[in-house]
Amino acid sequence: MTAILIIGAGRSTPSLIQYLLQQAPVLDLKLTVADMNLELAQEKTGGNPYATAIAFDITNDTQRRELIQTHDLVISMLPAHMHTQVAKDCVHFGKHMATASYVSKDMQALHDDAVQKGLLLLNECGLDPGIDHASAMQVIDAIKAQGGQITSFKSYCGGLVAPESNDNPWGYKFSWNPRNVVLAGQSTAQYLNNGELTFIPYNRLFLQTETIVTDTHGAFDAYANRDSLSYQSIYGLEGISTLLRGTLRQKGYCKAWHVLVALGLTDDTFVIRHTDRLTYAQLVAAFLPHKTGAVKADLKHWLGQLWDGEIEHQFDYLELLTNKPIRLKEGTPAQLLQALLEEKWLLKEGDKDMIVMQHQFAYRLDGKDQQLSSSLVVIGDNEEHTAMAKTVGLPLAITVKLFLEKRFTLSGVQIPVKPEIYTPLLSELATQGIVFTEKNH
Amino acid sequence: MTAILIIGAGRSTPSLIQYLLQQAPVLDLKLTVADMNLELAQEKTGGNPYATAIAFDITNDTQRRELIQTHDLVISMLPAHMHTQVAKDCVHFGKHMATASYVSKDMQALHDDAVQKGLLLLNECGLDPGIDHASAMQVIDAIKAQGGQITSFKSYCGGLVAPESNDNPWGYKFSWNPRNVVLAGQSTAQYLNNGELTFIPYNRLFLQTETIVTDTHGAFDAYANRDSLSYQSIYGLEGISTLLRGTLRQKGYCKAWHVLVALGLTDDTFVIRHTDRLTYAQLVAAFLPHKTGAVKADLKHWLGQLWDGEIEHQFDYLELLTNKPIRLKEGTPAQLLQALLEEKWLLKEGDKDMIVMQHQFAYRLDGKDQQLSSSLVVIGDNEEHTAMAKTVGLPLAITVKLFLEKRFTLSGVQIPVKPEIYTPLLSELATQGIVFTEKNH
Repeated sequence: MTAILIIGAGRSTPSLIQYLLQQAPVLDLKLTVADMNLELAQEKTGGNPYATAIAFDITNDTQRRELIQTHDLVISMLPAHMHTQVAKDCVHFGKHMATASYVSKDMQALHDDAVQKGLLLLNECGLDPGIDHASAMQVIDAIKAQGGQITSFKSYCGGLVAPESNDNPWGYKFSWNPRNVVLAGQSTAQYLNNGELTFIPYNRLFLQTETIVTDTHGAFDAYANRDSLSYQSIYGLEGISTLLRGTLRQKGYCKAWHVLVALGLTDDTFVIRHTDRLTYAQLVAAFLPHKTGAVKADLKHWLGQLWDGEIEHQFDYLELLTNKPIRLKEGTPAQLLQALLEEKWLLKEGDKDMIVMQHQFAYRLDGKDQQLSSSLVVIGDNEEHTAMAKTVGLPLAITVKLFLEKRFTLSGVQIPVKPEIYTPLLSELATQGIVFTEKNH
Repeated sequence: MTAILIIGAGRSTPSLIQYLLQQAPVLDLKLTVADMNLELAQEKTGGNPYATAIAFDITNDTQRRELIQTHDLVISMLPAHMHTQVAKDCVHFGKHMATASYVSKDMQALHDDAVQKGLLLLNECGLDPGIDHASAMQVIDAIKAQGGQITSFKSYCGGLVAPESNDNPWGYKFSWNPRNVVLAGQSTAQYLNNGELTFIPYNRLFLQTETIVTDTHGAFDAYANRDSLSYQSIYGLEGISTLLRGTLRQKGYCKAWHVLVALGLTDDTFVIRHTDRLTYAQLVAAFLPHKTGAVKADLKHWLGQLWDGEIEHQFDYLELLTNKPIRLKEGTPAQLLQALLEEKWLLKEGDKDMIVMQHQFAYRLDGKDQQLSSSLVVIGDNEEHTAMAKTVGLPLAITVKLFLEKRFTLSGVQIPVKPEIYTPLLSELATQGIVFTEKNH
C-alpha cells in the first residue's frame, strides 16, 4: 500500500483528489486529505473508503511531522510560501513530495539531499507552471530533433470564464486566488523581443498589450508576465531572439484594469482606516486629482481619450462609482477593491470557467522559416469542478501516479520538462480531455 | 563624567560630534565614536582629547553590549532599521538613547519598560523629522493659546543645493543617502485637502506637484510625502481640513523625475544581469515601447507633450541617452540609475547644500481667517559640513545636552513636540544660525 498525504483541500484540489481516488483500488493507494478546515477536507473525500479527511494545522510541528512520517508521498496544495517546512520534513523522513508551485530557493536547496536519499521533489506540475512546461517542451524537443532552430517562442495562458457563463462586461470571474489577480503584474515584466531586452513597468503593463487570436474562441488581450527571460535556460532556448510569456484576458479587460492601476486602487502598501464610513465612489474620488463632486464626470475628465463606453459599462457593473458602502473596517486599496470584485466576479452556481493556453513557435528548418502554434482550451464542468481545478490538479495527480508506477525514476527537484515525464503525462491528459491542437502556419 | 556613545560616523554626523565636543569640557563629557570604518570615526573625532574613535560591528553582540554597558547615553546614527537592537540593549542595561529616525513599532514597544526604568528614548530629533516637529508645534501651541482654530497646515522641506553651487540642470546634488532619493515616494501619498481624504499613487506623484514660493530663494516644486494623515494626532490637529506634508525640489526636477518613474528606471524589485555589457542608452531603450534605434527620438516620441527642452537638457546632463557604459555587473534599475546619479549629483569640493523648510498655517481667530508662514533656509559651509549635517545633527546634540543639563526630565519614547523640549531647542538652534522667519499674510 502507498499512503499519500494531501495537505490543503482548497479550490484547486477536487480533480486531483477525485483522480487519485479513482486510482486507489488499482494502485493500492490510501489517501489522507488534511486541511485547517475539516469540512473542506470532508467535502473533497466524500466518504470514499480509500480516503480519510482530517483537521490539520501546518504550524503544529508535532502533528505535521507525525503525519508526514506515516505517509509515503506528500502532495502540498498549500500557498507556495508554506511548502518549505513540509519539504524539509519530507527529506528528513525520506518521503517523496509533489507541488504545483514554482521551485523556490528553499526547495532548490534540498535537491542534493533528496538525490542522495533517492527522493522525488516534484514541482511546477500544475497548469502554469506545469502543463505549459510539458506541452512546450514536447514541441521544442521535436523541432530540435528534426534539426530545427527555434527563433521565437511566445506562450500565453489565461484562467477565464467560459463564453456561456460570460455575463459581465469584464469577461472575468475568479477561478483561483482573487488576491493574486488583484496584485498581478506589480513588478516590471522582462522579455526578449527580436533580440532586444525589453521591460514593461507596472504603470503601463495593462496598456502595452498584444492581441492573441484563437481559432475557436476569438481574440484575447495578453499582458506580459514578470520574468520570461528565465525560460531561456529552463527550456534550452539559448540564442533565441523572441521569448515572451503572457497572461490572457478577455478583450477590453486590460484597458479597464489599467484605469484601476493608474487610479492607485491596486496599491497594497498602505492601510486606509475607517473605510466602513466610506463609499466606493468616495474611495475613487480620493484618488482623483481634480474633484467637482461628480465622481464619474471627474474620472472621465481625468482619463480623457482613455475613457469610452466600454469602460463606463465595466465601472458601472462594479458599482465602483456609486454610493455602495465599503464593508471592510480598514484595508489597503487592493483589499478594498478585492472585496468588491469577489462579490461581482463570483463563479455562480452552474457557471463554467475556461482555460486557454497558446504556444507560438517560429523556427528555421531546412533553410525555411516556419511557424507553429499549439493551443489548448478547457471548459469547466461547473463552479466547483472548474477547468482551473482540472488543469492544476490532474497533471499533478497523473505525474504522481506515473511515478508510483515507476514510469519514470527521477530524484531530487524536478519539473515536467523531461520527455520521461511529459510524454506519458500529455498522453494521459489527452484521455482526460486536456489536449493541444497544433497548427502550422 | 557622562560617557556618550555615538554609533555611526557617516555624513550626517560632523555637526553632531563637533557640537558635543565643544560641550565636553563644560559638561564633563567623554565621547566614543564607533563606526564599521575606523578611519571615518577618526576623521570625525580629529584627535580631540575628549573623544575616542573605535571600529565597531553592530552585529557583534558581545562588543555591542560591552560598549553600551560602559556608556551612559547612546546616540544611534545607524540606518533606521538597525536601531532596534541598540534600543533593546539600552533599556536592558539602563542607558538613555537618542536617534534622528522615525519611531518604529519596535521602538514604541520599549516605551513602558523605559518609563519604568526612568530612561529617555529620544527619537525624530533631526531635521525632518525633528526641527519640523519643534518649529511647527511652537506655532500650533501659540495659535491655540490665543484661542485660534487651525484649519489648514501644510509643511514642506527639502535638502537641496545652494544657488551658488547649483550648476546642473536638475538643481540637485546628494546631501544624504542617494538610495532614499532614488526610491522616494514608492507608495501612495495620503493627505487631507479641504476636508477630503486625498491619495496620489507613485505613478503620478511627481506630476501632481505644487509650487511653493519663498521670499528669499524663489519658487520650488513640492511633491506630497507618504503619510501626512498621521500628523493629525501627533500635532493635536483633529478637525483640521487641510493637512499636507511635502518635499521640495528645484523647479523642473519633478517633471523630469516623473519621466524616470514612468520609464520604470526607479524599480527596485528585480535584478538585471550582465549590465556591464549594456550602455545607459540601451537600458533606457529596453523600457521604451517602440524602438527605431535612436533612443532620444524614441523617448521624445513616447513622451509626446511631456517632452521639452528642459527635460532634454536634464537627460543630456546625466548622459542617460548615450553610450556611457554601465559599470555595475548587475543591479535593479534603481541601483543602475543610482550609480549614474552618484557620479553626476556629487557635492564637489567647496559645494554648498541648502535646507529649505516652510510651514503654512491657516487659522480662525476672533472671527477672522488668518494666515501665517514660518520659513527656514540653512546654507551649508562646504561639502562636508553640510546644511543637512547641521540640521540633522545639531537638534539631536542640543536636545541631548538639554537632557544632560536636566532642562527637561521626560522618560520613555519621546519626540520634540512638547514645549519643555522645543522651547530651549529652538532658542539654541537660533544661536547656531538655524532660525525661522514668521510672516503673517
